[in-house]
This record gives sequence, C-alpha cells and structure tokens, in this order.
Amino acid sequence: MLTPNSLYPGARVALLCASSAVPEERLEPSLAAVRAFGLEPVVYPSCYYVNRHGYFAADDAQRAKDLQDAFADPAIQGILCIRGGYGAGRLLPLLNWKDIARHPKPFFGYSDVTALHIALNQCCRMVSYHTPMPSTEWYKETDDFTLGYLRRALFGALTGPLDMGDRVETLCSGKARGILCGGNLSLVVDSLGTPWEIDTRGKLLFLEDVGEKTYRIDGMLTQLRNAGKFDHCAGILLGYWTDCPPEYPEKTLTPEEIIREVVLPAGKPTVAGVPCGHSLPTMSLPLGAVAVLDADTKTLEVCP
Amino acid sequence: MLTPNSLYPGARVALLCASSAVPEERLEPSLAAVRAFGLEPVVYPSCYYVNRHGYFAADDAQRAKDLQDAFADPAIQGILCIRGGYGAGRLLPLLNWKDIARHPKPFFGYSDVTALHIALNQCCRMVSYHTPMPSTEWYKETDDFTLGYLRRALFGALTGPLDMGDRVETLCSGKARGILCGGNLSLVVDSLGTPWEIDTRGKLLFLEDVGEKTYRIDGMLTQLRNAGKFDHCAGILLGYWTDCPPEYPEKTLTPEEIIREVVLPAGKPTVAGVPCGHSLPTMSLPLGAVAVLDADTKTLEVCP
Repeated sequence: MLTPNSLYPGARVALLCASSAVPEERLEPSLAAVRAFGLEPVVYPSCYYVNRHGYFAADDAQRAKDLQDAFADPAIQGILCIRGGYGAGRLLPLLNWKDIARHPKPFFGYSDVTALHIALNQCCRMVSYHTPMPSTEWYKETDDFTLGYLRRALFGALTGPLDMGDRVETLCSGKARGILCGGNLSLVVDSLGTPWEIDTRGKLLFLEDVGEKTYRIDGMLTQLRNAGKFDHCAGILLGYWTDCPPEYPEKTLTPEEIIREVVLPAGKPTVAGVPCGHSLPTMSLPLGAVAVLDADTKTLEVCP
Repeated sequence: MLTPNSLYPGARVALLCASSAVPEERLEPSLAAVRAFGLEPVVYPSCYYVNRHGYFAADDAQRAKDLQDAFADPAIQGILCIRGGYGAGRLLPLLNWKDIARHPKPFFGYSDVTALHIALNQCCRMVSYHTPMPSTEWYKETDDFTLGYLRRALFGALTGPLDMGDRVETLCSGKARGILCGGNLSLVVDSLGTPWEIDTRGKLLFLEDVGEKTYRIDGMLTQLRNAGKFDHCAGILLGYWTDCPPEYPEKTLTPEEIIREVVLPAGKPTVAGVPCGHSLPTMSLPLGAVAVLDADTKTLEVCP
C-alpha cells in the first residue's frame, strides 16, 4: 500500500463532489473552513449548485471528470470531497483507476465517499482518509477531538495510537493486525457483487451507519455475513447507528441483538462504540493503512 | 429446470413464514382463504405469533426448520409462504439445499420470499411461483385478474401467453427468450456477493419494489448495473415502484429517469409497468421457467 505525500500549509486542494448537490449557501463557509486549515481550495464544477442534476451535484460525467482531473492535475496536492449523500457508486465504472493510481495524492471524505475509498484502496493500492467533510462538519464550530484528528489526517500524522474515547466496548475478545477498511455500512454493502467489492480478507473492518431502519441494518449485516465478509476479516470495529430507531419498539431486535446474532458468531476480535462517522465528536481513520486492534484493551494503533 | 408436480383439490399445503411475524388476527382468515381454493392447510410453528422473535416470525433456527421440514415431509404437496416482510436472507446458510432438491414441490410467495426463489431456482433447479400470499392478499376480497393468475399458479396452469394488462410500456425494443428470474429489487440486490447471488446470464429479469426512497432505487439499480446484471441478462421486465416518493420533488430523478440512465444503456429488450408485486391487480409468475418477452408487442409467453 502506498501512503500519498502529506498536505502542507499553502497546499492547493481540489474541492469537489462525487455525490449529492451542495446547498448554495454552504459553499463559501466551506471554502473559509478549508482556508482556516492553511490550505488553498480550488473549486471544481461539481461544487456549484447550478450544475446539479436531480439529487446529484452534477451529472455522472461531470462528477467523474472532476475526480479524474483532480488526480491528474500536478498543481493539485490533495482532494477534499465537500459532501456525501448519494451518487459516488454511479461513477465507479466511469473512472480510469489505472490513471488515478499513477497520481497518488491524499483523498478525504466519508459516508457516500466510502465507495471511492474502497476503490482507491483496492484498485490503486492507495491509503485514503475517512474524515469529516467541509460542507457537512468543517464549516461548523466543532470539538477539539474532531479537529485534532482532522488536522492529523490532513497533514499526515495519523499514525501511532488512535484515541477511541471512553465509550468503546469489547464485544469479542482478542487482538488482530490488518489493513483498515470499510466505512458506511450501506456503501460497503453496495459494493458487493461488483468489480469494486470490498475485500475484507485479513483486514480490520470498520462499519457505521445513519438513518437506516433497524431491519435494514439487519439485512445489510446479514448480506455481509452471507458473503463471508466477517469470517474472512481479522477484526471488526463498529461505530454508531445514528438515527436508526426501530419502527415497532415492542417487536424489534436492537442493533446490539442483531450484532450478537449476525456478526459475533464469526468469532473475530470486535469492539463497538467507535466514535467515527455520522456523529460528533468523530475520529478520522487512514483506510488502507495497517493497524493493530486490541479488543480487550480497546486500543487501536496505526503501524508506521 | 424441474417443474414440481402441481397442486390439486384436497392437496395438503404447508403454511409457514420465513420472514416477519404474522399478526395473530390474520392467521384464521388466511386459513379460510387457503381452504377456499380447495387446499388443506397444515400450519407450521412460524405462523404462530407466540413464536415471534423480534420482527421475525420465529428465530432463524425455527424458520429454517419449518422450511426444511415442509420440503422433506412426503405428506405435504406444496408450500405457501404466509407473508413476507424481512428475514428470509437470514435462513440461506442454514438450509440444506441438496436435501430440498431431492423433494421438489411447488413453492409460493413474493417480496422477501424473493431470496428463497433465487436459491430454489439456482441451487435446486426448481421452478417456483411469484404469487400473492395468504396473510397479505388472499384473505381480502380481490379482483378476478389476481385470483385467476393465482389459481393458474397453484394448479399448474401458468404456461402459454400471460396477460400483462394494458399499462405495459416498451422502454427498449426487441425480443428475448430466457428463464424468468428476479422479483423484489431489494432482495435481488441483497443476494449480490453471496453464494446465492442472482445469475441473470441469458435470463429475463423482473424487478419491482415498495416503500423505498427514490435515491435507494437508484442505488440498488446502480449496484445491479455495476455487477453486470443488466449487461448479462437477455431482457428486462419492470413492475411498479409502489410508495417510492421522492424526498425533495424539486431536485430528484424520477424512477423513469433513473431507469433511463442506469438500466436502458444495457440495450436489452425492456418493458415497464408489469402488474406484478406490491400492487393490485397482480399477475403471478413462474420463476425458473423459460419464457419469451416481446418488448414491441408487449407480450410475455411461458414456454411449455
């Protein structure tokens, strides 16, 4: 795996959107937030609301072009996805992954962007960064935990022990070493059966989600189980299931019960409550990097 | 492909549930509806509300046992899934498909039951029947179109030309011959990446869904496209997208636009508006049987 060169104060970063349309009033605050980190944003067409296509930031061809151009342009040192939503999966067959692999640069985002992280990690052997995004978190006042992590991710310091806060729980005992992979559960599942299917063999699989009905969390975890993704991985990190309430509280399984029935029988070292994804404060994670999870001491350490 | 022996007046049929819990007050009306077709229902434990587990009709082991027992019992001539909902996918790794293949019998249901149809068709080479279900449609007064189709499916007369009503539209011209497969879009997509992944090569793929957000219809069709399922099939039949309203009408793609962008580029003979699935009146379909679709004349004929 290749770790792209880090950003530095004054670096030019592409601001683009592979997914849903960016609300017009969020663009300027996003630019200000990028500049506040000492970075120079270069705005790509998919950031402008005028270019939206249905729920997308722009049509598939334009969103794919923005990504391809940003990787190819030698004057761009890194790529920030300005938001998620839905749509990155539409671009996978349109992108020239071989060409992208020839221009490694740090790439940032999460949620719908999970589709691109999987492809960058697997097709380009490139480490990429699961981080909050300018138009969804950066533009707001946020906490030191989140900001500290984001800064480490942006400037290449996301190695060594990663503080997971004090709400992590051990679900299955043990220690595992492997490449970090995963992200948003819905997007990880959307990769199955495609040429960009997540490969969890020997890896540490991170999963979280937002706004899904409980039975859908069950269905998605069941599909991953049926596909052997828990059996094949080395260890499992579970985040929060944000805004995933049961429809009928009196006759439901909670996410905890679902995990006990579907995930834990694989017997892999597993922790839950990892603060990463659709809740604040949030960690950042270097996807594609090798890390060691100790489920008993509830620690995660990224290897140098 | 093997077509199991048909049912006949007085045949004993297993009534069971592979999916969600059956409301207590629906069981007796369901039994009455089965008897009204001249069939003798045998009620399996998964039909009793007292056995429910969370949102499931019973725990995975019991639901799997009911299915396995019903196929194995020589005194049972057919199997009716009493309802859908969610949960059939949980059972796929628990069932002994080789044993089921040794006891072919007609099997009926739709929606969540799609997961079982795919496995029966592909693992057991057995034709099975996409039909309404006792506790969701049969117990109500329904229309002659639906009843006529259901009767043909139950008693082995679902061959020859199938009337698709007068709302079918040609989306892509051409004629195709192949095995009928598919059903509920969500469940077809849930099969991807698993040992029970739908194989659409040279087949006629039917898809419909209910209660999904527009962007999820987009995401699921995109996953099927990315997995090559449209490129590989011979023809496509699209049903209704029932209760799938856009979240933000002013910036959405309609199902029609999504289909134009994601499904039609495969260039396969395609019709839309097939009255089958989560809307009434509904056809029944023999999944696993060979049929001919003529997208221009909007006709479907099941080969003998």
